[in-house]
Amino acid sequence: MKVHDSKAAPNPRRVRIFVAEKGLDVPFEEVDIVNAVNRQAEFRQKNPMGTVPVLELDDGTCIAESAAICRYFEEIQPELPLLGVDATDRAVVAMWDRRMEFELLLPIADSFRQHHAFFKGRIEQCPEYAEVAKRRAVQNLAWLDEVLADRQFVAGERFSVADITALCAVDFGRVSKIGIAPEQKNLARWHEAVSARPSAKA
Amino acid sequence: MKVHDSKAAPNPRRVRIFVAEKGLDVPFEEVDIVNAVNRQAEFRQKNPMGTVPVLELDDGTCIAESAAICRYFEEIQPELPLLGVDATDRAVVAMWDRRMEFELLLPIADSFRQHHAFFKGRIEQCPEYAEVAKRRAVQNLAWLDEVLADRQFVAGERFSVADITALCAVDFGRVSKIGIAPEQKNLARWHEAVSARPSAKA
Repeated sequence: MKVHDSKAAPNPRRVRIFVAEKGLDVPFEEVDIVNAVNRQAEFRQKNPMGTVPVLELDDGTCIAESAAICRYFEEIQPELPLLGVDATDRAVVAMWDRRMEFELLLPIADSFRQHHAFFKGRIEQCPEYAEVAKRRAVQNLAWLDEVLADRQFVAGERFSVADITALCAVDFGRVSKIGIAPEQKNLARWHEAVSARPSAKA
Repeated sequence: MKVHDSKAAPNPRRVRIFVAEKGLDVPFEEVDIVNAVNRQAEFRQKNPMGTVPVLELDDGTCIAESAAICRYFEEIQPELPLLGVDATDRAVVAMWDRRMEFELLLPIADSFRQHHAFFKGRIEQCPEYAEVAKRRAVQNLAWLDEVLADRQFVAGERFSVADITALCAVDFGRVSKIGIAPEQKNLARWHEAVSARPSAKA
């Protein structure tokens, strides 16, 4: 197997951190997204959406979508669970992971792609929406700071995929000048803790 | 347990159909979203996002996010699997379910909420984006029609949660005048088949 990867995009990092946390030995192969190799016909046979990451299994099955790829790795390596430990916990972790995706990663990504030159001609952009998304992202960081007041990690007292999604979102905020505000002490404490894990270098 | 529900919104229907397919006996309780009861303090204790559906367990644990709720029901009732049957299949189903969410349900929902009076004052709207989202939804329906040319269901030959997400998305398109085009025969055939299942009435 191998993962079609890009060091330049936020979503593939979710998979790299997940794999590092699991201690799995999976080859990653860089796709030249700057030159839009991911949008060419050959890559679209692996993923018609033209996005990275894509996990290609030895039988040729291609699995796109970071969350789907992480789910596969959780199944083949259940130890050190990152998607929860029982039925209720798995639902709670899934809820928090989705909140980090929809309330944080999505507006932070839209702040960038809805106006930045990189996406010109790749998607139909809406610069007005980039501004709306940025305000939403800033508001939601303040909300997440409150959430983290009484818990160590996003989904509770255990590190999970929701922390990985949130970390990749917050760090990708830099390109749109979205970041942790000085008064957001809980968010800063959490960010320092998850960034200090060896997996964060992935 | 009970599910805080709304017949007026597309996401709760995903859970109702899922529960109907599983044959589970779960009480649903309507939340008056027209009068924004879901945005009041009492409901936000269950889900700070102020969205339905929310599954409330007997111990008080609240699980928001349709996909997280469906995952819980799959765990407590694994028979008639809707999230896949083995590690690879579960990843493939997760991938297709996410594609239906991000490529179909999200733009169809944004076509509505980014401009419609219902969401005025509830979110910061961006009417320009409603138009972009609508064009994207229309394009992606054409793509889904191609996908369905060589398969019975969205994720392959087995009905899955991806069909439920796609059905709720397509049906919610009506409020924004987004629908299956006359030439989209595969999509029409699929829509007829999934709409004929008893669960679709949920």
